[in-house]
Amino acid sequence: MVNTLFLPELREMLAEHNSEDLREFCLALHPSRIAEFMDGLSADEAWQVLRHADADTRVQIFEYFTHDRQKEIIETQDRQEVAALVLDIASDERVDILAGIDEAVVAELLQRLPAEERRDILRLSQYPDGTAGAVMATEFVRLPEDLTVRQAVDEISRQSETYETIYYLYIVDHENHLRGVVSARQLLAAMRHPETRIAEVMETALTTVNVMDDEEEVVNKVAKMDLLAIPVVDQERHIVGIITHDDVIDVVRATATEDQLRAAGVEPLEDTYLRTSIWTLGWKRGIWLGLLFLGSTLTALALKSYNQEVADWEWLVLFLPLIISTGGNSGSQSSTLIITALSRGHITLADWSRIVLRELMMGLGLGLGLSLLGLVIAPLVFEVKDVRQLLVLPMTVWAVVICGTVTGSILPLVFKRIGWEPALMSNPFVAVIMDVLGTVIYMNVALALILK
Amino acid sequence: MVNTLFLPELREMLAEHNSEDLREFCLALHPSRIAEFMDGLSADEAWQVLRHADADTRVQIFEYFTHDRQKEIIETQDRQEVAALVLDIASDERVDILAGIDEAVVAELLQRLPAEERRDILRLSQYPDGTAGAVMATEFVRLPEDLTVRQAVDEISRQSETYETIYYLYIVDHENHLRGVVSARQLLAAMRHPETRIAEVMETALTTVNVMDDEEEVVNKVAKMDLLAIPVVDQERHIVGIITHDDVIDVVRATATEDQLRAAGVEPLEDTYLRTSIWTLGWKRGIWLGLLFLGSTLTALALKSYNQEVADWEWLVLFLPLIISTGGNSGSQSSTLIITALSRGHITLADWSRIVLRELMMGLGLGLGLSLLGLVIAPLVFEVKDVRQLLVLPMTVWAVVICGTVTGSILPLVFKRIGWEPALMSNPFVAVIMDVLGTVIYMNVALALILK
Repeated sequence: MVNTLFLPELREMLAEHNSEDLREFCLALHPSRIAEFMDGLSADEAWQVLRHADADTRVQIFEYFTHDRQKEIIETQDRQEVAALVLDIASDERVDILAGIDEAVVAELLQRLPAEERRDILRLSQYPDGTAGAVMATEFVRLPEDLTVRQAVDEISRQSETYETIYYLYIVDHENHLRGVVSARQLLAAMRHPETRIAEVMETALTTVNVMDDEEEVVNKVAKMDLLAIPVVDQERHIVGIITHDDVIDVVRATATEDQLRAAGVEPLEDTYLRTSIWTLGWKRGIWLGLLFLGSTLTALALKSYNQEVADWEWLVLFLPLIISTGGNSGSQSSTLIITALSRGHITLADWSRIVLRELMMGLGLGLGLSLLGLVIAPLVFEVKDVRQLLVLPMTVWAVVICGTVTGSILPLVFKRIGWEPALMSNPFVAVIMDVLGTVIYMNVALALILK
Repeated sequence: MVNTLFLPELREMLAEHNSEDLREFCLALHPSRIAEFMDGLSADEAWQVLRHADADTRVQIFEYFTHDRQKEIIETQDRQEVAALVLDIASDERVDILAGIDEAVVAELLQRLPAEERRDILRLSQYPDGTAGAVMATEFVRLPEDLTVRQAVDEISRQSETYETIYYLYIVDHENHLRGVVSARQLLAAMRHPETRIAEVMETALTTVNVMDDEEEVVNKVAKMDLLAIPVVDQERHIVGIITHDDVIDVVRATATEDQLRAAGVEPLEDTYLRTSIWTLGWKRGIWLGLLFLGSTLTALALKSYNQEVADWEWLVLFLPLIISTGGNSGSQSSTLIITALSRGHITLADWSRIVLRELMMGLGLGLGLSLLGLVIAPLVFEVKDVRQLLVLPMTVWAVVICGTVTGSILPLVFKRIGWEPALMSNPFVAVIMDVLGTVIYMNVALALILK
């Protein structure tokens, strides 16, 4: 919902070039709220408002704009002013934003940035999506190991406005190798003895991630150890960036939503549900719905080869949807359990035999329970003539549930083994496999029991 | 997997009462790793090891034990020692741990705690699961508004070891009303003018949550504003606790996993996949699998009333699984999109008409696409005699997809409206509804087209 509360006033202030009021508006609330209140303005108007804010506030509000708005402003407004803005955006955000911008514009902007910042952008943009390098920021406090506590405090209070976070201070040797870390809390406590060398108060048992590590690994480490930030190092243990708690929260939320959507056969959205155009959404759903539809036509072909049997024993049809659904449900239970356990780091591929055995046992047990239910239900639905007819539904259900739990557990493990994201397609795959398997098992159980 | 690397050495040290080595072992690595290395010890042995650690390390390691192990230690070991341990556990963790302990033991322990801590535990344990009050900790830095910057720094460096976090300092008036906040960064920067009053440097535009707010609301605020911690206030704006970034990460991960499991019809687990007993897991899956099975038997009853038609037109059976699956898929796509958008705060109930309209359009579009596919597929699967036969599959698919998208979008909104958790049962409910609706729509389309 667009908040239109302040729009008339904002437009009036713009028309009157009322710098003072516009500056005050930008400072009045948290930047995220200010960005919301500007939702109804055009990108051009929004930029005119921002130009009245001080540089710091401007960039904070800009970071809360939607990607579309950011893109439009960067591509259409004065290059020099935009370059100054880009310079102020946090390094990890900046790379994400520039990734969506017209290449010619990016090239022009890069020319206007200091050489060091330009190199920083080019280096960060090389890390593949989903790695620690792609999430990390390069602004962090780095202190030489030979400072005293007092010198460190002076250094920080001088520089505190440049940095995204000063909650950890990273201590390096003269070649930028990470040697230790001091938290803001430890530094404040150490102020009682201000002449101590910082190397004596620092922690040396460090948790780090490699720049090419998967972001899921980063999340698991930060969550497990309750860290505010985790340092990112390269192969030679040079510190190259940090990943902070807020980036971790963003990664956790984004990947959780992506996994949920993928499990339901929807390609993850780049924007919120209401902001995604109906065409984009249609494509992201249609592609999977179509593939699943085509996959399920295999059930029609499978059924066709049993057409005569079904015609002879018309009661068989009654349980077809029930069996298909039950197979799908037991399969998606297993695959979801395995996918969530893999992503939380609760199981690894090395546990595969234990997992599959467990799911086999689970299938045996759950299948037995459901087949007993089936034994009660079958006579309520159709007139059972002999015991073999009575056994068709229970035996099929038992076999289908076992196939479901085993397929549902093996498939995500296989995906993981060959390097695919387990959440990517396991559930839809399992669904199609169980549709076809369920049909084939049903017909074969029926053939074996009543037609011989 | 239990790490058995240090078990023999640990047992030897215990047998020899080698206090010094045991104390060093406890300090050698991050507490989470130490807890892992003790996985193979009995609860009694693990406690004997911990008794050699200093009180601070002891409680840190203890917090990483599994809930079962914590419970066993608290219930069986010396009450006085356990009470001392409980005193040191962070207030939010403590309440969670005590919730699982035998009531008689808790009563005994509470008697041995100072009155203030006892009241704190009793108060925190009253907040319902899933509220801000149940997640918050009560250890935070609270400073009177009339201190100077220097006095504040002195106060903190004196007390820094008592608190879970000093990243924000909450400024209160003499009646404990929250007046403002100063970050550690701001305080360090303000050290250049140490005689300034803290009330002059504090931020007064505060983001707070109410003690009864839903934890999802807390997550949305913290994530949106990139906060390290958010203060929790009661109705009269007294500060009663804080929720820190690490608690937020835990809440996000836990609720994401819960939502994924519920969407697949699995009751959320209290422990990891491999640590959950097969009986517990069987129950958490079986209850839903059984209910879904019973729900799907409605399809058998629905089909029964069309038994004659199916017998006359045997090719109708061929597409039954395909139609059932397609309805289920389109429904779960919609419900998952709506559930994730609700939990991320991207949509609210007020958007309901826009959402349902959007999903109706989506159903019209996607259904049309799939029905065109059906038009191509039908003649490949069976010998089509006339155009009315040809139209049965496409028209059914179209109608079923529309029903799927509309049901899938309305149900989570209805759940939310009546105060149920939308993720709780929407997907399984939608699945059963679409099984039955799919069957009924199919038969009625067939009746209307070919039997009249």
